[in-house]
Amino acid sequence: MNRMRLFTPGPTSVPEDVLLEMAKPVFHHRTQDYKNLYAAVNKLLAQVFITANPVVTIAGSGTAAYECAMINTIPQGGKVLCLSNGKFAERWVTVAKRNKCEVVELKAEYGHAVPVGKVAEALAAHKFDAVTLCHSETSTCTVNDLQAIAALVRKTDAILIVDGITSVGALPVKPDEWGVDILVTGSQKALMLPPGLGFLSVSEKARKKSETVSQPNLYLSLSHYLKSLAENDVPWTPAVTLVRGLHTSLTMITQEGMENVWKRTAAFARATRAAAVAMGLKVFSSNPADSVTGIHYPAGVDDKTFRGALRKQFNIHIAAGQGSMQGQIFRLSHMGYVDAFDTLGVISALEIVLQQQGHKFTFGAGVAAAHQELSKLHL
Amino acid sequence: MNRMRLFTPGPTSVPEDVLLEMAKPVFHHRTQDYKNLYAAVNKLLAQVFITANPVVTIAGSGTAAYECAMINTIPQGGKVLCLSNGKFAERWVTVAKRNKCEVVELKAEYGHAVPVGKVAEALAAHKFDAVTLCHSETSTCTVNDLQAIAALVRKTDAILIVDGITSVGALPVKPDEWGVDILVTGSQKALMLPPGLGFLSVSEKARKKSETVSQPNLYLSLSHYLKSLAENDVPWTPAVTLVRGLHTSLTMITQEGMENVWKRTAAFARATRAAAVAMGLKVFSSNPADSVTGIHYPAGVDDKTFRGALRKQFNIHIAAGQGSMQGQIFRLSHMGYVDAFDTLGVISALEIVLQQQGHKFTFGAGVAAAHQELSKLHL
Repeated sequence: MNRMRLFTPGPTSVPEDVLLEMAKPVFHHRTQDYKNLYAAVNKLLAQVFITANPVVTIAGSGTAAYECAMINTIPQGGKVLCLSNGKFAERWVTVAKRNKCEVVELKAEYGHAVPVGKVAEALAAHKFDAVTLCHSETSTCTVNDLQAIAALVRKTDAILIVDGITSVGALPVKPDEWGVDILVTGSQKALMLPPGLGFLSVSEKARKKSETVSQPNLYLSLSHYLKSLAENDVPWTPAVTLVRGLHTSLTMITQEGMENVWKRTAAFARATRAAAVAMGLKVFSSNPADSVTGIHYPAGVDDKTFRGALRKQFNIHIAAGQGSMQGQIFRLSHMGYVDAFDTLGVISALEIVLQQQGHKFTFGAGVAAAHQELSKLHL
Repeated sequence: MNRMRLFTPGPTSVPEDVLLEMAKPVFHHRTQDYKNLYAAVNKLLAQVFITANPVVTIAGSGTAAYECAMINTIPQGGKVLCLSNGKFAERWVTVAKRNKCEVVELKAEYGHAVPVGKVAEALAAHKFDAVTLCHSETSTCTVNDLQAIAALVRKTDAILIVDGITSVGALPVKPDEWGVDILVTGSQKALMLPPGLGFLSVSEKARKKSETVSQPNLYLSLSHYLKSLAENDVPWTPAVTLVRGLHTSLTMITQEGMENVWKRTAAFARATRAAAVAMGLKVFSSNPADSVTGIHYPAGVDDKTFRGALRKQFNIHIAAGQGSMQGQIFRLSHMGYVDAFDTLGVISALEIVLQQQGHKFTFGAGVAAAHQELSKLHL
């Protein structure tokens, strides 16, 4: 009877209203009904992305959307500054290299933000077609200083392509105000949907750049998407049920209001970090993202045993570390359909399992610290 | 209170059990639970595709899956024979040209099958890397002689890439027995799911060919999908809810059995064609597909008014013609979750609206002819 609690940094929990909306009978997409739905969705997307630019929806994962952004705006052989501090940023390096781009990779150690000063140096030393960045690097639970980096890039001819897969709808991000040319996200994170949709907002600077680029892919052809979008239409068959669910989830998000969503998400992250410290654990990142928290395992606690116990005893699902961080950290999402009591619940479960597995700490201290932080949300 | 009846050739009706399965809470895809689900799905896909080859599932539309097939197996600059008798086949010509392939296009007029003799001539005259073909060309409601064409192609070094988007699960197609190297389909047709998934089966000949091809796209990289698939895993985040629904729909299909599904689909198509003739209408194709029927409008009946009346009075949704066939024909699907009484119902509604719009015919003759054909299913 333990209710499933999904704290993985994507997929995240999907609200019951969204699940039920998606269970309604499918209808055809070449109809005025679909255009009306898509027009409503596009208005809501503009509010969530905080942009006056078009936001393209793709049937595919976040990887499809980010690749769409890159291949349509960076010419083959173009020069790209890839800012990298984790596994996802490294994926964008792979995309650039497959497209025979000249890549300058500016790497920060896992768990640290990309230093803004180094970005300024790189931008001064080279002329780039594009800069790629993960705003919130999900693998290392680390946030980069997007606003400062965008301020630097907007002064150059390069376009800034931001992986906001675990930032849009979770962390403050204002693409038009800050100068983010392309902002990408996926459906299964803060947007509270199942996986299957990718999104990208496209600035005028990025659109103009895309007109100079010829790339072979048809499915991910940005010009096809933008041309259709201008008429609230789609070039290829859309994932109709997911788009219906999207309408419901975006309505919920915009009704709460972006400032409130950010405030709530940040409070859950602060509560979790405070609890970690109180339980004698160390937060992984030197610049933690509020969308997902990484916590070092204490000595003697095994990753698979720990996560397995949470799953078996509590039906609580958290994520392992990725790559070289596997076995070293666990990760907890604060995005989307999660509330203060879910947060308190997962911390309680963490305490119980940590104690079972021999970690020494003041039992109850984590819950008390989290409770303290969470109560501030209601003051 | 009129129940929605979707006779569009994709999306098609989704069974209630599938809709409800997709409404269950989302779970994480990097788990043994997901691997178990995907393993079960892959076993069922093999039964529906009637193949011992791997069947890749992509989060994306049928276009994404067909493009994946082409770009991974045809080198840039390679030579392709594109067999074409409709709008979808023409899309694959576009993909070939965007990838700088040398295209030999063998065109049949809309509504006619590609002549097998001409295919033999083309194969004798050139050395191709690949041959592209729509088995059932949805836009013209016309079936091509896949078995005969496959027998010719398998004698050459070329691989045969078949768009089975409205054939897999609707018409007899046996890729291993016939020699189809890549068979593509989408979720929203005979597989009775919402749109959002594409599929391709990959023969050993196609896989070997793909190893000689270097292409830039990461999201559609066949080697990434095949490598993961060998462990019932996925390279990118899958559309989890759709894959869950897929498990339910494939279970329903395999329980009915492929032979029975084909028999049923063919009976509905025959009933619809017999009804058309009895109503004084002309079937569009000289070689009609059993998955979707195209019917010429009689003089004086306007496409938008006709389809609008069906929608408003009966909540019945049929499709217009595409491209130059728009306004000339209407199209009715027989794929997937449709039964004899749905078929009878749509024909009854067609009669009523045709009479309203001034078409002269023996009222009731269409239903009688369909009823005659449909009754044979139960003999």
